Amino acid sequence: MIKVGIIGATGYAGAELVRLLLGHREAEIVWYGSRSYVDERYAKIYQNMFQLVDAKCMEDNMEEMASKVDVIFTATPQGLCASLLNEDILKKVKIVDLSADFRIKDVKVYEKWYGIEHKAPQFIEEAIYGLCEVNREAVKKARIVANPGCYPTCSFLSVYPLVKEGLIEPNTLIIDAKSGTSGAGRGAKVDNLFCEVNENIKAYGVAGHRHTPEIEEQLSLAAKKEVVINFTPHLVPMQRGILVTAYASLTREVSYEELKAVYDRYYQDEYFVRVLEKDVCPQTRWVEGSNFVDVNFKIDKRTNRVIMMGAMDNLVKGAAGQAVQNMNLMFGCEEAEGLLMAPLFP
Amino acid sequence: MIKVGIIGATGYAGAELVRLLLGHREAEIVWYGSRSYVDERYAKIYQNMFQLVDAKCMEDNMEEMASKVDVIFTATPQGLCASLLNEDILKKVKIVDLSADFRIKDVKVYEKWYGIEHKAPQFIEEAIYGLCEVNREAVKKARIVANPGCYPTCSFLSVYPLVKEGLIEPNTLIIDAKSGTSGAGRGAKVDNLFCEVNENIKAYGVAGHRHTPEIEEQLSLAAKKEVVINFTPHLVPMQRGILVTAYASLTREVSYEELKAVYDRYYQDEYFVRVLEKDVCPQTRWVEGSNFVDVNFKIDKRTNRVIMMGAMDNLVKGAAGQAVQNMNLMFGCEEAEGLLMAPLFP
Amino acid sequence: MIKVGIIGATGYAGAELVRLLLGHREAEIVWYGSRSYVDERYAKIYQNMFQLVDAKCMEDNMEEMASKVDVIFTATPQGLCASLLNEDILKKVKIVDLSADFRIKDVKVYEKWYGIEHKAPQFIEEAIYGLCEVNREAVKKARIVANPGCYPTCSFLSVYPLVKEGLIEPNTLIIDAKSGTSGAGRGAKVDNLFCEVNENIKAYGVAGHRHTPEIEEQLSLAAKKEVVINFTPHLVPMQRGILVTAYASLTREVSYEELKAVYDRYYQDEYFVRVLEKDVCPQTRWVEGSNFVDVNFKIDKRTNRVIMMGAMDNLVKGAAGQAVQNMNLMFGCEEAEGLLMAPLFP
Amino acid sequence: MIKVGIIGATGYAGAELVRLLLGHREAEIVWYGSRSYVDERYAKIYQNMFQLVDAKCMEDNMEEMASKVDVIFTATPQGLCASLLNEDILKKVKIVDLSADFRIKDVKVYEKWYGIEHKAPQFIEEAIYGLCEVNREAVKKARIVANPGCYPTCSFLSVYPLVKEGLIEPNTLIIDAKSGTSGAGRGAKVDNLFCEVNENIKAYGVAGHRHTPEIEEQLSLAAKKEVVINFTPHLVPMQRGILVTAYASLTREVSYEELKAVYDRYYQDEYFVRVLEKDVCPQTRWVEGSNFVDVNFKIDKRTNRVIMMGAMDNLVKGAAGQAVQNMNLMFGCEEAEGLLMAPLFP
Repeated sequence: MIKVGIIGATGYAGAELVRLLLGHREAEIVWYGSRSYVDERYAKIYQNMFQLVDAKCMEDNMEEMASKVDVIFTATPQGLCASLLNEDILKKVKIVDLSADFRIKDVKVYEKWYGIEHKAPQFIEEAIYGLCEVNREAVKKARIVANPGCYPTCSFLSVYPLVKEGLIEPNTLIIDAKSGTSGAGRGAKVDNLFCEVNENIKAYGVAGHRHTPEIEEQLSLAAKKEVVINFTPHLVPMQRGILVTAYASLTREVSYEELKAVYDRYYQDEYFVRVLEKDVCPQTRWVEGSNFVDVNFKIDKRTNRVIMMGAMDNLVKGAAGQAVQNMNLMFGCEEAEGLLMAPLFP
Repeated sequence: MIKVGIIGATGYAGAELVRLLLGHREAEIVWYGSRSYVDERYAKIYQNMFQLVDAKCMEDNMEEMASKVDVIFTATPQGLCASLLNEDILKKVKIVDLSADFRIKDVKVYEKWYGIEHKAPQFIEEAIYGLCEVNREAVKKARIVANPGCYPTCSFLSVYPLVKEGLIEPNTLIIDAKSGTSGAGRGAKVDNLFCEVNENIKAYGVAGHRHTPEIEEQLSLAAKKEVVINFTPHLVPMQRGILVTAYASLTREVSYEELKAVYDRYYQDEYFVRVLEKDVCPQTRWVEGSNFVDVNFKIDKRTNRVIMMGAMDNLVKGAAGQAVQNMNLMFGCEEAEGLLMAPLFP
Repeated sequence: MIKVGIIGATGYAGAELVRLLLGHREAEIVWYGSRSYVDERYAKIYQNMFQLVDAKCMEDNMEEMASKVDVIFTATPQGLCASLLNEDILKKVKIVDLSADFRIKDVKVYEKWYGIEHKAPQFIEEAIYGLCEVNREAVKKARIVANPGCYPTCSFLSVYPLVKEGLIEPNTLIIDAKSGTSGAGRGAKVDNLFCEVNENIKAYGVAGHRHTPEIEEQLSLAAKKEVVINFTPHLVPMQRGILVTAYASLTREVSYEELKAVYDRYYQDEYFVRVLEKDVCPQTRWVEGSNFVDVNFKIDKRTNRVIMMGAMDNLVKGAAGQAVQNMNLMFGCEEAEGLLMAPLFP
Repeated sequence: MIKVGIIGATGYAGAELVRLLLGHREAEIVWYGSRSYVDERYAKIYQNMFQLVDAKCMEDNMEEMASKVDVIFTATPQGLCASLLNEDILKKVKIVDLSADFRIKDVKVYEKWYGIEHKAPQFIEEAIYGLCEVNREAVKKARIVANPGCYPTCSFLSVYPLVKEGLIEPNTLIIDAKSGTSGAGRGAKVDNLFCEVNENIKAYGVAGHRHTPEIEEQLSLAAKKEVVINFTPHLVPMQRGILVTAYASLTREVSYEELKAVYDRYYQDEYFVRVLEKDVCPQTRWVEGSNFVDVNFKIDKRTNRVIMMGAMDNLVKGAAGQAVQNMNLMFGCEEAEGLLMAPLFP
């Protein structure tokens, strides 16, 4: 059994890790870390876990945790993981960091967009960007996996084949993303109250959202040139789900069949990426609670653009599910272990 | 492997059976029955099943189905199951009927409340009311299980221990129930449109809902006398979930500890019934997607009444989950097989 | 023009007062009081008021406010109004208190249920319980109006005619109420986050909610005897709206026509109370944004009980609308001035 | 008093016309037309109008209606208005057509995108596109006003100043729009059921939505050259509201102040268009129930694009409110009569 510790187990992403790992046949959680609820029973905070989890919350102590577990998930805001990590710890455990600390290779870019100093830049190079569909082999050998952000996962997987194949001009890319509210976390803020979120949609972080450089870096690697894009996230009155609608100019005339063949080639062996059939638009409800990303595209001959779409559960493939997928690779389990549940509908 | 046929696989309860049975290690669906979508691919109607279910919908033909499967689930409106059933079929397969056809022992009561003639009254006596927590042994030997209604399941389990022990006067029982909209089914009706359901709550079927006699019959068996109650359902703007708030006069002075001990005695060995801790109210979000029923109670000394509460997912414990639980008992599987997933939150 | 000051203008009830008074032809707001947003532009907090309200928030200073306005609305938690009020102030302005401070005549009952000491008990007797439909004449002459609570308004108006006429036994009354989330206010609490409220229903304050004694006191006055009831509120995933479902035993056999005639007699001249037609259940969506209370009832001959129902917008008739209605009476305006907008649907 | 007839009074747009006109001091509805509910009381279908509207529904008979009213609103699907209209009718009444029949000047474009033959092409030239902010003077003299579509209204007003001033290259325009569900109408379709819409977001009509040519025609007029754009609508789980996020390349380097001055110049005298302050993003909740359109923009220097945003209530400014605004102009009333209510929040 893989012994698991979670730093930030009482946030939404942490709670989703708990839900998924309860169904994992080769892992068990031995440390429920929390800053706010130390010594409280976990099931008191997440009553869905009543009679399923008996443990109490413990401190978010990475040092001590490292001596008791095989892998640590950090499901906390940016900065914390980097501030706690050191070589001693890395000698004892593997790390899957759900925060942004090790996602961006250029530390200056990180520090500029996140507005904080990076406390452990020496590990950035070593860390693997944990998008299994792209970096599978590297993840298997990693000590530190930087679990991708929710928007970047959905954005990147939606456009990756066409960028990689040079079929779209990456600098014309405009990504308009829409997310449910769980992505904003469980903090008590007026902006996230039911009466503020319900019956409302808004853009936020326009031309300045922190996931922009993460998406750009990955796209640049795929395109083999520097890519600068527009990325605009929106908040939608639903709990889970991210929908990405991406627009880009085609580099040459293409047919539906040609692009479909490209998507299929990239994803036919990827269990968690489903290329939908012609004219079927991805919808968040069809992936809720699961680790799937549904993608599709539509060519607009009038404007010579292609519209690429992706739908995903932000807490699963966009956070905890992808983290478990990474853990599975790191520990030699079946990649889909613990992640085989069908989407919940309605 | 248990071979399963579903009549009505394209309704919400049928789709939930599909979701649950995909995760069942000893059952496989071999017949997706549907009236409206014959020959269409199932995953086209329920896109969440894309790449998970390859089958096409077939006719709701119980006769033919019976020669190909071990168990038939009928997830259709009242009347259909009774109209299709005969002794030949019952010699070949077991039936779990999710409709009301075999729930009520008194055929006149059924015909009065449902306003239709019962087409197979000869099987009513044989059919077992499939509330596993009460009729476990009988279910194991049954050919026909009448899967309980959603409201009756939640209502009955919330009040059963106190009725059975004579601690409340059953004829003072008032059950005020609230349900999500999936209980109304997938039919295209104006009343169930998003814009009609959202931002709204209403009572319906006041003093006349068809689940009333079902609840009363089961309570009468428990109380060993005829019970007449008030039952009022309400429609709530959510997808899944039933909450029951039940009121009754206590027959004598009791303490919290005494009632708690009664509930615990009835349910401590029941995996799917969770008696919550003192002062914790059941909430539908804590059971969503799971087969749990969370129950609790509060004594009101001022009025000498007890308020009993229960929360449940209407599509799982209130329909498909309980049906699978019954199937497990009928076929000698672990009772919780396929039903161990933790509730989904948020 | 009636000059209006609002203490607590930045809460949901305060904001609704602003919305309603903007459409009032004989009143103007001259003081937007707030504790948290002093010196900020009101329209920055409530962006719907952009270009409609230019004012900045000022302190919640009742003393100073009293010298500049004709009427003060206090839309704040219990305790504040009583702590600020004095005879000097009352000589200058009229008060409509939306908190509970002056609703309950027995100060001991208030102090027990609210758990705080009453700071101005000398004004309790003078204060008029501002349910216009019952105390219209007294309100007209009042210096202090205690604006009724949201649940009490809807509960009381739903059952009042039958209690008053002795047609139900008031001590059998069980009131099961359901409310949207705006009733919980705009405070930043985890419990009121979108992801916690959505797709959920729960009871709260079971057998102990503070609106219980308020309802009981008014019912006792109507019944001319002490009344003790069960009152259970529930939180529903919607923004506005309260639905009350009340159960009581009939004191004698009655017909629909007889009870309908009673309701009509009490409410036919009450513009804001609509007695619905036979078998039409009140729904919160049909009153949203308006000052209407829709009521109806259903006799259950099987149990000899009557089920009484009421629907209302908690922020309008349950708070700000009723407060404006009271102001209109106190200042000799048309009672419905500023309150004539039709309900918004969908 | 302006006598009003409504064809399609029982759809959502028709019902919103009724709500708004009830508060209009110079208009009264004398004909509630309906296809499905002839002879039923209007308030039985829209219970919010109980005791506010006594009338029964009458046939959608434009001929007869024309002899009894001064203005006819057609709130019906495309094709109906054109099929009923003739010169005799136009001699008697003015027409505000909420359908698409007279919005597009090129009848071939209409017939191609809508897939139907136009039955009254002789009136297309005469009809005025009823975007008051652009065509105010023409509307005043019109016999037929083509009330703009919901998406086109919000899209056009969001980008108009920059297109008109040549500050953006119109052929780079990408409009990503999000709408609440009331825009889909009150038809009983599975796709619009609560359980299908809630907790979901999807794109639809990708690269082929019928509002595309309407937007393009208006933009072409503004840009004085042919404009071809991408327009992608999405369905969001809310009742009302449209949010537009539009992207375009700037034609030259500009400052925030410069663009702000342009927007202000175009809209400072437009009561219903609110140009928000710097960095405030439009949100649908701040305009709900009102005739306002909130617009703003953000320059992205990294990509040399500007992101333009607009929020609006699709049933008010996007349908019934704009129709009343047009009627006001056509009949010499104050342009804002009946439309002065503040947005409802929450």
